[in-house]
Amino acid sequence: MYTGIGASAGIGIGSAVIVKEPSLAYDNKAVSDVDAEKQRLIDALDKCIAKTQAMADDMKERVGEKEAEILEGHVLLLMDPEMTGQMESSIADDKMCAEAAVEKICDYYMQMFAGIDDEMFQQRATDVCDIKTRLLKILLDVEDVDLASVPEGTVLVAEDLTPSMTAGINPKNVTGILTEVGGKTSHSAILARALEIPAVLSIPGITEEISNGDNVVLDGSEGQVYVNPDEALQAEYEQKRAAYLEEKAALAQFIGKETVTADGVKVELCANIGKPEDALKVVECDGEGIGLFRTEFLFMDRPQIPTEEEQFAAYRKVAETLEGKPVIIRTLDVGGDKEIPYLALEKEENPFLGFRAIRLCLKREDLYRPQLKALLRASAYGDIRIMIPMVTCLDELRAVKDMVAEIKEELKAEGVAYNEDIKVGIMIETPAASLMADVFAKEADFFSIGTNDLTGYTMAVDRGNAEVAYLYSAYNPAVLRSIERVIKAGRAEGIMVGMCGEAAADPLLAPLLISFGLSEFSVSATSILATRKGISLWTKEEADAVAAKAMSMTTEAEVEAYLKTVAKH
Amino acid sequence: MYTGIGASAGIGIGSAVIVKEPSLAYDNKAVSDVDAEKQRLIDALDKCIAKTQAMADDMKERVGEKEAEILEGHVLLLMDPEMTGQMESSIADDKMCAEAAVEKICDYYMQMFAGIDDEMFQQRATDVCDIKTRLLKILLDVEDVDLASVPEGTVLVAEDLTPSMTAGINPKNVTGILTEVGGKTSHSAILARALEIPAVLSIPGITEEISNGDNVVLDGSEGQVYVNPDEALQAEYEQKRAAYLEEKAALAQFIGKETVTADGVKVELCANIGKPEDALKVVECDGEGIGLFRTEFLFMDRPQIPTEEEQFAAYRKVAETLEGKPVIIRTLDVGGDKEIPYLALEKEENPFLGFRAIRLCLKREDLYRPQLKALLRASAYGDIRIMIPMVTCLDELRAVKDMVAEIKEELKAEGVAYNEDIKVGIMIETPAASLMADVFAKEADFFSIGTNDLTGYTMAVDRGNAEVAYLYSAYNPAVLRSIERVIKAGRAEGIMVGMCGEAAADPLLAPLLISFGLSEFSVSATSILATRKGISLWTKEEADAVAAKAMSMTTEAEVEAYLKTVAKH
Repeated sequence: MYTGIGASAGIGIGSAVIVKEPSLAYDNKAVSDVDAEKQRLIDALDKCIAKTQAMADDMKERVGEKEAEILEGHVLLLMDPEMTGQMESSIADDKMCAEAAVEKICDYYMQMFAGIDDEMFQQRATDVCDIKTRLLKILLDVEDVDLASVPEGTVLVAEDLTPSMTAGINPKNVTGILTEVGGKTSHSAILARALEIPAVLSIPGITEEISNGDNVVLDGSEGQVYVNPDEALQAEYEQKRAAYLEEKAALAQFIGKETVTADGVKVELCANIGKPEDALKVVECDGEGIGLFRTEFLFMDRPQIPTEEEQFAAYRKVAETLEGKPVIIRTLDVGGDKEIPYLALEKEENPFLGFRAIRLCLKREDLYRPQLKALLRASAYGDIRIMIPMVTCLDELRAVKDMVAEIKEELKAEGVAYNEDIKVGIMIETPAASLMADVFAKEADFFSIGTNDLTGYTMAVDRGNAEVAYLYSAYNPAVLRSIERVIKAGRAEGIMVGMCGEAAADPLLAPLLISFGLSEFSVSATSILATRKGISLWTKEEADAVAAKAMSMTTEAEVEAYLKTVAKH
Repeated sequence: MYTGIGASAGIGIGSAVIVKEPSLAYDNKAVSDVDAEKQRLIDALDKCIAKTQAMADDMKERVGEKEAEILEGHVLLLMDPEMTGQMESSIADDKMCAEAAVEKICDYYMQMFAGIDDEMFQQRATDVCDIKTRLLKILLDVEDVDLASVPEGTVLVAEDLTPSMTAGINPKNVTGILTEVGGKTSHSAILARALEIPAVLSIPGITEEISNGDNVVLDGSEGQVYVNPDEALQAEYEQKRAAYLEEKAALAQFIGKETVTADGVKVELCANIGKPEDALKVVECDGEGIGLFRTEFLFMDRPQIPTEEEQFAAYRKVAETLEGKPVIIRTLDVGGDKEIPYLALEKEENPFLGFRAIRLCLKREDLYRPQLKALLRASAYGDIRIMIPMVTCLDELRAVKDMVAEIKEELKAEGVAYNEDIKVGIMIETPAASLMADVFAKEADFFSIGTNDLTGYTMAVDRGNAEVAYLYSAYNPAVLRSIERVIKAGRAEGIMVGMCGEAAADPLLAPLLISFGLSEFSVSATSILATRKGISLWTKEEADAVAAKAMSMTTEAEVEAYLKTVAKH
C-alpha cells in the first residue's frame, strides 16, 4: 500500500498508464540569422496563445469556468511583453536559439516565483513551467501526450498533471489519478475534483513503482493506493466504489432542493467558511447561506491589523457572492495561543480560559471598531449578520450593540450606506451562555451553538489534549442537555438558533437537533448535500421519539450506541 | 506606614517597647580543668531543662496544649545525648569553655536545619537558636528580658519573639506585637493568635525605625503599622478596634451553638483543611465537622508516592481529632500544573482542562488504590467520607465505587476493620456535573459544590489570569443558576448537598444558599463563627424573598448591588 494525499474523493480501479513527457532536447548553438530566429519565437508564441486559448475554451465548456481560469492565466502570461521581450533580447543579444531563449527566461521566472514561500507563487512557478513545455513542444514540433486516447478504465500515473495534460483528460476513460507531487489545492487536485476523478497526490516515486498495465486500486478519500491487489481486496474496493457512487447519485438528487424533514419541517442549511474565496464553493455546493465566516485569517500572517478597507473588501466579496443569502460573520476570535505578533498578547497558563475573543475585542477598540465598521459598510451589499464569539455575560452583548449603534451614527453622518436592521447575534459556546440562554434570547437577534467549544468547556476538556480526548464528545448527556436548553430557549423567544460546530453535520445527532427545533445547520461546504439528505430521512414525530429516548440516558456510551441503532441512511 | 505580614487579627494601639536581647559575650579562652567545665555544662543543661519544662507547663495552663508543644520539643532537644555529647567532646578534646561548646554545636545544628528548604526544618533551626540563647544566659547568669513586667498598653517590637520571651507575655499588658522576621506559621504568629494579641510580622528594620515610647497603631488583619499617627488616624483606628472587639464578642456568643436560621432551620457548618494538624483548629473553632480535607499536601514536596501506611496515619489522625464528627476527605486533586516530579506529568497547553484529579487517578491505580485503601482503613476510626474531585460523567463515579467495593472485599479477606457504609460523594465543580446533578444524585451519597472551579469553568475563566478576573464572580446569574440547580437536584433525592468553595463563607450569598436548601456550609476554620452568625440572621421566608428577587436579575453587577442593599450584620 502507498499513502498519499487524498485530493479527490472516490474509489478508482483500473489499469495503470504511466504518463511521461517526451524528450524536449534541442541543438543549442548560436544563431546567425537573428531576425529569422525572433520570427520563429513570435510564431511559436502566437501558436501557443491560440492553442492555450482553445484549451481554455474547451475546459470552460467541459469542466467549468473556475478551472478554465488557470489556462486563461497562461494566455495572459504568454502575452506579457516583458517576458517575451526578454526572450527576444536573448536571441538578439546572446545569439541564442528560440528554444534556449524560452528555456532561459522561463527558468528565470520559475526560480523567482518558486523562491517565494507562498502557495500562490508556487503555483505561478508551475504555470510558467507548463508554458515553457508547451512552447518548446511547438518549437520542436513534438506531439502532446494524448490523454484523450487512453482506453477506458485507465489510472493515470504521472509526476505531475499539468493543465495542458489534464485539459485532454476524458473522465469517461480515466478512473483515477496518481501523482508524485501536488497538494489538496494544486491544479491537479482542483481539476480532478472538477472532473470527479478520484485522485491521490504526493506519492514520491510512484511513477517508478508502477508499470504500465499494473492493476491499481485507489481511495481518493483516504489517500490510499494498492498495486496489483489480491482478489479479496479488489472485491472489497469494487464494493466500496459501488457504495460511493450510489451515495453520490443519491446526494445529487438533493441539489437545488429545500432542506426539509420527511414531513416538511423546513430548516436552513448553511456552510462554515474561513476565507472569502470559500464562499464560491458554498454556492457551488448549494448552500443556503454562510452560517459561520471565521474572520481570523484576515488578521493572521501579516505585520499589522488589517485596515477597515481591507476588511470591507473581504466582507463585501462574500456578501456579493452569496447574492442576498444570509452571511453570518463572526468577529475576531483569537487569544494568546494564536501567533499574531502585532497584538502582543501574553502567553497564558490556560489560554482557553483566558483573554481572547470578545474579551480581547472589548478592551481593544482599535482592533474591534474597524471590524464592526467594515461589517456595517459591507452590510449594504448583502444579508450580513454580526456574530459575537465566546460570550459569557449580557454586558458583553450590550457593549457590542452599543458600539454598533455608535458606528451606525458615524456612517449616517458620513453618508455611507449600511443595513439599519443588521442582526447582532451570539455564539453559544460557554456554559454561562447556555445557562442564561433564555435571558440572552431577549436581547440577541440569533444564536449559533458552537458545539466544539461548548463540549470542551462543559466537560472541562481541552480537545487538543490526547490524555483526556475520551471525554470530548457531544454525545455526553450533559452536552446534549445544554444544547437542548439553548435551542428551546431561543425558539421560545422566536429567534433563529443555528449550530456551526461539528455536531451539526453528524447524522447520528440529526434526529435530536430536529426534535429540539434547531433552525439552522451550518456545516462544511462538502457536507451540505449529505446533511440535507440526513435531515430529509426523519419525520418530526420519529425524531421526537428518538430524542426522548436518548435524553433519558445517563452516559455517553449509552447515547452513542442507541443513536447508532436508530441511525437512518 | 509600614507593611508586614498580618499574622494575628485585630487592632493594636499602644506605646512601643523595644525588646533587645542582652549581650551574651563571654571570654573565649582554653580551659584547663576539663572536668570542672564539663560539670558546668551539665549543670547548665539540667537548669535549662527544668526552666524550659516550667515554661512549657505555664504555657499549657495559660495558653494551650498546642503552643506548649514547642517548648516540650525544646526539652527533648536538650536531652538529646548526641547533641550534648558533642558539646562535652568540644570541651574535652578542644579545651573549649562551656559557652563556646554550646555555641559551636548549636550553630552547627542551626546551619544544618536552616539549609533544608522546608518550613518545618526552618522552624527547627529557630528552636535550636532559642535553646542556645537560653543555655548561654544560664552559663553567663544573664537575666531574661522580663516581658511580664511591661506596662499596660505596650506594643512589643522585637527582631523575633522566641518562645522563651513569649512565654512571659501577659496579654493584659501587651496590646500588639511587631517583629522583623517570621511568617504566618512561625511560633510568634501561633502564639500571638493563641494569646489573641494583634501582630504584624516580617517588617525588616522595624526595631530601628521605632523608638521606645513611640505611639504605635497596628492592624493585624491587614498587616499595616503606623508610628506616631495623627489624631484623625488614631481615632479611626480606635473606632476600628472597638468594632473589631464588638464583633469578636458577638461571635463568641455563637460558640457551642447549633447552626440554625432565625426560624430554626438547621444546617451543618464544617471547615476546610489542608493538613491533618489543621483538624485541631477546626475543633477549637467549634466546627461541626470537616467539609473538605484536601489531600494534595500528602503528595507534595517528597520524592515518591506516600505509602498507604503514611496516608492511613494522616486520615486516622483527622478522624480521631474530630471524634466521630463527619470528615469529608477529597481524593487526590492534582494535574500537570502542580510540581510533583515523581508523577512525571506532562506540561499541558490548558492544564485546567487537562489530565488531572479523578481523570489522572482512574488511569493511575498505583496512585489511587493505596489512597482509597488508606481511607477505608481510617474509616474505622471516625466518620470518614470519600469525595471525588472534578467529576464530569457518571462513569467516573461508578468506577470509583467499583474500586471501593473491591478494596472492601480485600480488607474483609485480610480481617482489617473499615466502615462498610462509608459514603462516597462527588465535588460538583464542572458544568457537566451541574447539568447532570439529578442523575448524579441517584448514585452519589452526597454533593459538595466547589464554587471556585465551578465559577471558573462556567464563565470559561482562569481565575489566576488578571486580564479576565473581572468575569470571575459567583454573583454571575449563570453561576447562581448552576448552584441552585445542584442544591435542588441533590435535595430532591434526599442527599446532603454541601459547599466548600469560598462562596460558602460569603455573607452576601447566605440568603440564597439558605433559600436553595444548602445542607452543609464548609468554610475556613476562622470563618466558622461569622458564618454561623450570618446564617442565624435570616429566616427561610426572608431568604426566599431575597433569592427570588436576585434570581430574576440578569447581570452580575445588579445581583451584587442588590445583595449589598439587603445584607444583614
